[in-house]
Amino acid sequence: MMVVKIGGGEQINTKGILQDIAALDESVIIVHGANALRDELAEKLGSPRKNITSLKGVHSVFSDAAAIDIMMMSYSGLRNKRIVEQAHQLGVNAIGLTGLDGKLIQGKRNPGIRVQENGKKKILRDFSGKPISVNTTLILLLLENGYTPVITVPIIDQYNIAINTQNDLIIAAIAAALKADTIVDLFAEKGFMEDRDNPASLVPYISKAELPALIQKTTGGMQRKIDGVNRALENGVKRIIFGDGRVESPLQKALAGAGTIIE
Amino acid sequence: MMVVKIGGGEQINTKGILQDIAALDESVIIVHGANALRDELAEKLGSPRKNITSLKGVHSVFSDAAAIDIMMMSYSGLRNKRIVEQAHQLGVNAIGLTGLDGKLIQGKRNPGIRVQENGKKKILRDFSGKPISVNTTLILLLLENGYTPVITVPIIDQYNIAINTQNDLIIAAIAAALKADTIVDLFAEKGFMEDRDNPASLVPYISKAELPALIQKTTGGMQRKIDGVNRALENGVKRIIFGDGRVESPLQKALAGAGTIIE
Repeated sequence: MMVVKIGGGEQINTKGILQDIAALDESVIIVHGANALRDELAEKLGSPRKNITSLKGVHSVFSDAAAIDIMMMSYSGLRNKRIVEQAHQLGVNAIGLTGLDGKLIQGKRNPGIRVQENGKKKILRDFSGKPISVNTTLILLLLENGYTPVITVPIIDQYNIAINTQNDLIIAAIAAALKADTIVDLFAEKGFMEDRDNPASLVPYISKAELPALIQKTTGGMQRKIDGVNRALENGVKRIIFGDGRVESPLQKALAGAGTIIE
Repeated sequence: MMVVKIGGGEQINTKGILQDIAALDESVIIVHGANALRDELAEKLGSPRKNITSLKGVHSVFSDAAAIDIMMMSYSGLRNKRIVEQAHQLGVNAIGLTGLDGKLIQGKRNPGIRVQENGKKKILRDFSGKPISVNTTLILLLLENGYTPVITVPIIDQYNIAINTQNDLIIAAIAAALKADTIVDLFAEKGFMEDRDNPASLVPYISKAELPALIQKTTGGMQRKIDGVNRALENGVKRIIFGDGRVESPLQKALAGAGTIIE
C-alpha cells in the first residue's frame, strides 16, 4: 500500500500523477494540498491568510472560523472535487473525503499559541491541531471495494469540531495506521535540496539517522515535511520519497529514484 | 429508509433537522442544497449566477466552468462539510459525498439550451444534466456500516465530467434506486401553498392524480419540486412530505403532518 501526496502548489502536474496512479498495480491512498488555491481564494474574499509567530519562533497559519470556511471551500470543495473528477477521467475510481467524513482523521485541538502582541504576552487559540487516530476501518472498507480515497483537511477534533492540521502529519498518521510501505510526496521542488536555489544540490538519499539534524537545519514547510517523515519512519513506514510534482510522470520518476529517498 | 432534503435557504434550521435525524430509528440519506451560500459566494467573487431562459420559456441557471467551481466551493465544500461537522456533534455518523465520489450519481449532460440572443437563435451548452443512475452499492455499503451519507451536487456525466443538476432530481433518483418509503423535503416555506403569500393557503394533502395539473400551475423551484415528486412516486416511493425547514424540530413536525403530504 502506498500513500501519495499531491502538493498544493500551482504548477503541480495533477493529471500526470493520476495517470501514474492508474498505471500502478497497488492500492493507493491520495492526500492532497491546495495552498495556492486557498491563498488565491482568501485574497479574493478579502480575508488573506493570517500568519503568526509563537514566542518560540515557530511560524504557523492562524486558523480562525473564516479560515476554516475558506479551507473547506478550497481544499475540501474545489480542489478535492476537481481531483476526483479528473481521477475518474483517467480510470482511478476516486472518492473524496476530509478528516471529518466518517471521522476519518481524528485529532486533538492545540491548546493555544503563545504570542507577543503590542508588547504583551497572550495565548491565541485557533481551530488547529494534530491528528491522533485514523478510521482505518473506513479506509480499508473503501479500498477493499475498489475505491481510491482522496483525502484532505480539515480533520475532526475530540469535540467534533473541524480543525486545520498539517497535511504532512495526516500522511504520516495514515501511513502508520495502515502500515503503508511507501509514502511519495510530490511537490513543487526537485526533492530535498541542500540549497533550494541550487537544483544541483538535490540530495538523492537520506538515512533515518540524519533526520534529527535536518529538522534543526530546515525551516517552514520543509521542516514540517522532515518532521512528518521522521514520525512516519518511527511508526513503521519503510521509505518516504520526495519527488518533483511538476514534471511529466511525476510519480513514476520519483519511484525510479529521481528525487530524494529517505529510509 | 428515508431520504431527507435539507434546503439551501438561509433560514433553514439545519441543527434541528440533524437532531431529529439522530433521534430516528431508521436509515437516513441526507441530500442538501446551498443556494443562498452559492449566490453569496458568487457575488463576492464577482461571478454572479447567470440565469437563462430557453425559447420554450424555461428558466434555468447557466452552469459554465466558473459556476461549477463555485458550486464545488459552496455545496461540496463549505456547506457539505459544515453539515457533516454538525452531524457528528449531534451523534449522526455522517459522511459527505458528491455525485462525483465513487460515481455516486451518474448523469447525462444536457445537449444544449435553445435561446435567443440579440435577435438570433443559438444553442448554449453548459455543464448541466440529469441523473441517470445511482451507485446503490456504495450507498448501501456505507449505510450497512453505520454511516449516514450527506449528498450534494455536482454529479458526474457519461464522460466523467462534473455537471450541475437539480437536487430534486437527485432525491427522486436516490429514493427510487434504493426503494425508499419516504422523502421529506424541508425548505423555507410551510409546505405547498396555493398562494405563496398566504400561509393559510397551505395544502395539507395532495394525491398523485393532482400532480400533472399542479406542474402546469406552478413555476420555478416549486415546479421542479412537483416534477421531482411525480417522478419519485412513479418510481415506487410511497410518500413525499414537504415541510418547513425553519421551525423547531422541522423533521419531527413534517412527519407529524404539519406540512404537505403527497402520496
